[in-house]
Amino acid sequence: MEIREAIAERRSTRAFTEREVTREELYEILRAGIMAPSACNMQSWHFYVVAGEERGKLRGVCADWVAEAPLTIIVCTDRSAIEARFGERAKKFAVQDTALAMENMLLAATGLGLGGCVIGAYDQDACAVSFGIPEHHHVVALLPIGEPREKIPPRERKPLEDVVTFVGGQKNF
Amino acid sequence: MEIREAIAERRSTRAFTEREVTREELYEILRAGIMAPSACNMQSWHFYVVAGEERGKLRGVCADWVAEAPLTIIVCTDRSAIEARFGERAKKFAVQDTALAMENMLLAATGLGLGGCVIGAYDQDACAVSFGIPEHHHVVALLPIGEPREKIPPRERKPLEDVVTFVGGQKNF
Repeated sequence: MEIREAIAERRSTRAFTEREVTREELYEILRAGIMAPSACNMQSWHFYVVAGEERGKLRGVCADWVAEAPLTIIVCTDRSAIEARFGERAKKFAVQDTALAMENMLLAATGLGLGGCVIGAYDQDACAVSFGIPEHHHVVALLPIGEPREKIPPRERKPLEDVVTFVGGQKNF
Repeated sequence: MEIREAIAERRSTRAFTEREVTREELYEILRAGIMAPSACNMQSWHFYVVAGEERGKLRGVCADWVAEAPLTIIVCTDRSAIEARFGERAKKFAVQDTALAMENMLLAATGLGLGGCVIGAYDQDACAVSFGIPEHHHVVALLPIGEPREKIPPRERKPLEDVVTFVGGQKNF
């Protein structure tokens, strides 16, 4: 799939068919994630892959529908490494780097006919306990992935003129 | 360009040719940005486009080389809107949403034969003053974009097995 099409056709997907995500697809999605840029190339991300029966543990951690996805990637930052280097700024960089990786994963999934959704509402402590996530890994999002159950219409976007300012006017464009 | 190739070929680009970025290219990149997902579709991003003579003002705001890029997008969040809705969690969502948008912009640029770089080191106050950015817009990154001056080799990545954990073992994959 063309990059233009993947960007335009990506949808936040919350309902999935029964079809499994294959090993090859999962690895393509993960490899796309780690190709993202990161602050000073520190790659302070860690991905927990939840599939099969383990998905049941997602109930009580986040919205119930997430457990119905064939797989969910719990996206974490390894804060010990990045905080040692960047101090207070590390918090922002850690969130930024993992989000750059998530968009790569979502676009790679789209290219495979799959869909996913960035989940920001979850219980951090329950997630860590349920999945044995150590203290130095901090959960920043959950990313359920699977085949979309139905075609999802595009969500409305603010027009460009509302979210873009040309500094010094538009004379250069 | 295929999505796979764009993800694999994106490079953090810090040296550019003299070639201008066209209006069509800029709009394609900006449209790619706003197609990213965002928390509750709030799209609390704002992009300041710096080009032409205005680029000189980037000196003193960030590393000097950024002013040599044909254009730089100052990526902001409109925190007033998102904080009213999400309170303390807004900070994370605002950074996450803009980073998702930045990866789309970087990949769209790659598809156009251009390159860019997420700049996290800049003087927030100097940036706001130099470019007339109002207080409710908070700068989260600078994104210089242009034609790469040379082919950039890929940066090393941690192997997948170091950054991926299969919850409950790899039995499902």
